[in-house]
Amino acid sequence: MSNKIRLGIIGFGAEGAAYADFITKGMVPNMVVGAISDVNPAIEAKAHELSVPFFSDYKSMITSGEVDAVVTTVPHYLHPEVGIYALQNGVHALVEKPIGVYTKQAQRLIQVAASKPELKFGVFFNQRTNPLYKDLHDLITSGELGALRHSSWIITNWWRPQGYYDSSAWRATWGGEGGGVLVNQAPHQLDLWQWICGVPKSVFAKAQFGFRRDIAVEDEVNALVSFADGATGSFMTATHDLMGTDRLEILLDKGKVVVENSKDVTIWKLNKPEQEISKGMDMEAVAKLFRGQLDTSTFMSKETKSYSSVWGEQHSEVMRNFAAACLGEEELMAPGDQGIHGVRLANAIHLSSWTGQEVSIEHFDEDEYLEQLNNRIRQEGKYSERD
Amino acid sequence: MSNKIRLGIIGFGAEGAAYADFITKGMVPNMVVGAISDVNPAIEAKAHELSVPFFSDYKSMITSGEVDAVVTTVPHYLHPEVGIYALQNGVHALVEKPIGVYTKQAQRLIQVAASKPELKFGVFFNQRTNPLYKDLHDLITSGELGALRHSSWIITNWWRPQGYYDSSAWRATWGGEGGGVLVNQAPHQLDLWQWICGVPKSVFAKAQFGFRRDIAVEDEVNALVSFADGATGSFMTATHDLMGTDRLEILLDKGKVVVENSKDVTIWKLNKPEQEISKGMDMEAVAKLFRGQLDTSTFMSKETKSYSSVWGEQHSEVMRNFAAACLGEEELMAPGDQGIHGVRLANAIHLSSWTGQEVSIEHFDEDEYLEQLNNRIRQEGKYSERD
Repeated sequence: MSNKIRLGIIGFGAEGAAYADFITKGMVPNMVVGAISDVNPAIEAKAHELSVPFFSDYKSMITSGEVDAVVTTVPHYLHPEVGIYALQNGVHALVEKPIGVYTKQAQRLIQVAASKPELKFGVFFNQRTNPLYKDLHDLITSGELGALRHSSWIITNWWRPQGYYDSSAWRATWGGEGGGVLVNQAPHQLDLWQWICGVPKSVFAKAQFGFRRDIAVEDEVNALVSFADGATGSFMTATHDLMGTDRLEILLDKGKVVVENSKDVTIWKLNKPEQEISKGMDMEAVAKLFRGQLDTSTFMSKETKSYSSVWGEQHSEVMRNFAAACLGEEELMAPGDQGIHGVRLANAIHLSSWTGQEVSIEHFDEDEYLEQLNNRIRQEGKYSERD
Repeated sequence: MSNKIRLGIIGFGAEGAAYADFITKGMVPNMVVGAISDVNPAIEAKAHELSVPFFSDYKSMITSGEVDAVVTTVPHYLHPEVGIYALQNGVHALVEKPIGVYTKQAQRLIQVAASKPELKFGVFFNQRTNPLYKDLHDLITSGELGALRHSSWIITNWWRPQGYYDSSAWRATWGGEGGGVLVNQAPHQLDLWQWICGVPKSVFAKAQFGFRRDIAVEDEVNALVSFADGATGSFMTATHDLMGTDRLEILLDKGKVVVENSKDVTIWKLNKPEQEISKGMDMEAVAKLFRGQLDTSTFMSKETKSYSSVWGEQHSEVMRNFAAACLGEEELMAPGDQGIHGVRLANAIHLSSWTGQEVSIEHFDEDEYLEQLNNRIRQEGKYSERD
């Protein structure tokens, strides 16, 4: 292996082409494009432009010896299948999110990866490289702000018009895509939320299927989750809000963070745990509080920060880190097996919406989920059932 | 009856005294203080200062002929009982929120009021007189922004330290107060939300009982509600957030409103329903959208407004309107029977939290609620069970 990883790009649509572009522009210094595969023969000309081999079949590319690693920019259901084939043939796998549409499928990929410790299995969570969320993850997981109490995320700036859904027959179907906003747009937030706040234990949700779009799957989701130790969370996403909101709030024992538009961050830090402040306050202070005369600034500091982001930087950084991990130089920022949490939460939200019951995430019934998913695929009548 | 209503104030604590103050300062031009009653004999001196009769017993005051109307600034469980006695004795009743702790109790008051159409029965929802919420109610109910899709309210600026809860033995107990933040602090928002967005059909909730305070009742609530026609809502409140949030978002078919800190309002209006915009967008426009080049401002206008409020104005306005209604000059802004919605939603949130199930609000099982409430009163062992 040279000191540059030769990446095979599987699926050369808008995303695959963008990744090639980042590499050829030098934004990923430890990577070169090794080869391209696509089911569309017209893509061969683009491979020639890049002076790399073209394969009409991803399996031939993986076994060709031309690539050290692959990235899977193909429809969601194919992610695990392609990842498994790469790993089984000695090629590192950078798998697009989600790592599977349903947990049973994702677990198969994770098991194969676990049996190949010499190979790297990453998931393309580019938002984890966003400095804002990296800093937030580090702050919250450091424990400086204490234990989590509550978090809410309203993320509705995923507006998609009907024409987007109508652009490909597989889109927004149960058999072709396996879900709506939970599977396609929101996996980034489902990952970041758990990466920062921890993995929820249970969820009650109302997904709205074809609520304001003519589609089979969900265009809106409301979920109420329980984290560990009594902490709670609320998650709302939709593809029908033209004036989209992106607002994350995290309340902890020793502080609070509000993030707006994935850009502006406000951090409050308490000088001791809130319960101690509460217990230490005498009746005179309480009376002052009700008269609006209590100076709460003596307990807390407030800081505001603004982050900017450059298009492509996050994606390039995922690829650079992945290549560095393949070269044994760094740890993966987004190990593939962590992708299971977002898949399970999305599945649990579907299942809760279908059953009207709170669903355990800790003891998630993946067989029940798959049965319910297959019922919908069968009713749709366009695609084969899954196993 | 003169052209001024003689108000009997039942319970002369901080709130009762404030109301007397507003009246004597001339902030309620169509009202005078008629009499005061309180179980604490020390209050008699204050009645003398105001040159009005004092009664140690509210029933004697009601039948004394000294008052045309009463206001009930007494613990929550007593609100309906006092209101009923007033109405049965020919006196108008302005009942503090909530109009009862549980719906069965509130319904008794509503039934008595219905049998006395010549008397006015109001509920003290002072926030309904807040120009911000009045304007918002008028805007949303006018239909200009179309049908509701979703609303979320995070209202955690009800911070209360432990000393507040320890200040009276009845506070934050099941038998003495009947609940926590739902019964004491948040009834205003529970009312406003339904007044503006409509009455929810069902709720799934997680109330946290004694989560970050040493109390029996809830110091935090998370609720996910279904409104009519598939619209959803999320409500979060707590008394343990020193950095309290107050953020209301309402998404509709033709626009959106965000209210921050009950002060700053942003209103987006679409020039046609969002679904029409979605359907009318061709693939070229969709491609532009993904490149960030679509000018969405051609579909929408955005307006921001800021409101200020003066202490006492809201309360004085409730009293002025109530007196005007008693004098036959105006309609009540907050008719007492509308108070049932907030009581029922609070009860349904408790019940859902206790049972772990989604609870119907349309077909609310008030006997089950009362049984569960009495279980808690019995276990607490300090107060009598309710009927």
